Amino acid sequence: MLVKIYVTFREGILDPQGKAVLHSLHTLGYKSVEDVRIGRYIELNINDTPEEEMDSKIREMCSKLLVNPIIEDFRYEVVR
Amino acid sequence: MLVKIYVTFREGILDPQGKAVLHSLHTLGYKSVEDVRIGRYIELNINDTPEEEMDSKIREMCSKLLVNPIIEDFRYEVVR
Repeated sequence: MLVKIYVTFREGILDPQGKAVLHSLHTLGYKSVEDVRIGRYIELNINDTPEEEMDSKIREMCSKLLVNPIIEDFRYEVVR
Repeated sequence: MLVKIYVTFREGILDPQGKAVLHSLHTLGYKSVEDVRIGRYIELNINDTPEEEMDSKIREMCSKLLVNPIIEDFRYEVVR
């Protein structure tokens, strides 16, 4: 099964990389861009896990390793 | 308008960060994870751009700054 995880900074957390990219886009002339936020996109291939354990497994992996819950949020989808 | 851009390594390009995370997940006991790929997730807030120019603007920004087309692919969606 393919799991797609989207990790973003929480509301109110400063995103310096996003700010740098915003500045660069303005320098390149893309003034209509008002804000940039940069997060991570993680794809996991998982096998041999029963459908009903999938959610808890993914949440565990996120909280133990993939996501820093103090500054980051995540959402995910299971594709097939 | 909110634009969500997903940047991933091209097929066949080595993803060392993904390999490191895969190794860590195995160490933590998640042996059912077979592969990890890590990419970027970028959110742009764009105003004052006519709907019909949106696609070309986004592709321009990706090829000029946001994506390295030699090793990376991207897809995007315009949310509202």
